[in-house]
Amino acid sequence: MNDTTANAESAPQALLDIRKSIDNLDAALIHILAERFRCTKAVGQLKARHDLPPADPEREKRQVARLRALAENADLDPDFAEKLLNFIITEVIRHHEAART
Amino acid sequence: MNDTTANAESAPQALLDIRKSIDNLDAALIHILAERFRCTKAVGQLKARHDLPPADPEREKRQVARLRALAENADLDPDFAEKLLNFIITEVIRHHEAART
Repeated sequence: MNDTTANAESAPQALLDIRKSIDNLDAALIHILAERFRCTKAVGQLKARHDLPPADPEREKRQVARLRALAENADLDPDFAEKLLNFIITEVIRHHEAART
Repeated sequence: MNDTTANAESAPQALLDIRKSIDNLDAALIHILAERFRCTKAVGQLKARHDLPPADPEREKRQVARLRALAENADLDPDFAEKLLNFIITEVIRHHEAART
């Protein structure tokens, strides 16, 4: 089916199809994030044991630059990718600080 | 190497190893998000064509409940998963509204 044959009735089925993909991608996101937090938890434990600071601005700067480039190549808004990384890093630092107390 | 043989010198190498995993997971996140935005862009186009509202609170409620359950099973903080989904959905709605103007 192409645009010219699309009609109002076909919208719900097409929507349901795309939403199935979104649900699969969201499940993948959750599991990758769960694994990422397992990694950052290990980083936090290493940092606490060796008395390293929870945040690492130099590392974060490199991560942001790399992810912006990856996002650009994948046709994803680099500003959104950066905001998302900051959102995740804020949560990670909160975990690291909580692990110290 | 286990905890009892770990020493200050080994922290940087252990950190570098875990950070390699984090970098790989971040690249996966970016590409899954890029694909997710391709899907939601298609949803936005369908909605605009069929004059459906950009936001869908019932669908979002189901998504939140499902992702919280997935997060819990994967040992990820369900509140974080919900906040992240809201963060992504806010961006998606912004795209849908921009696509209409």
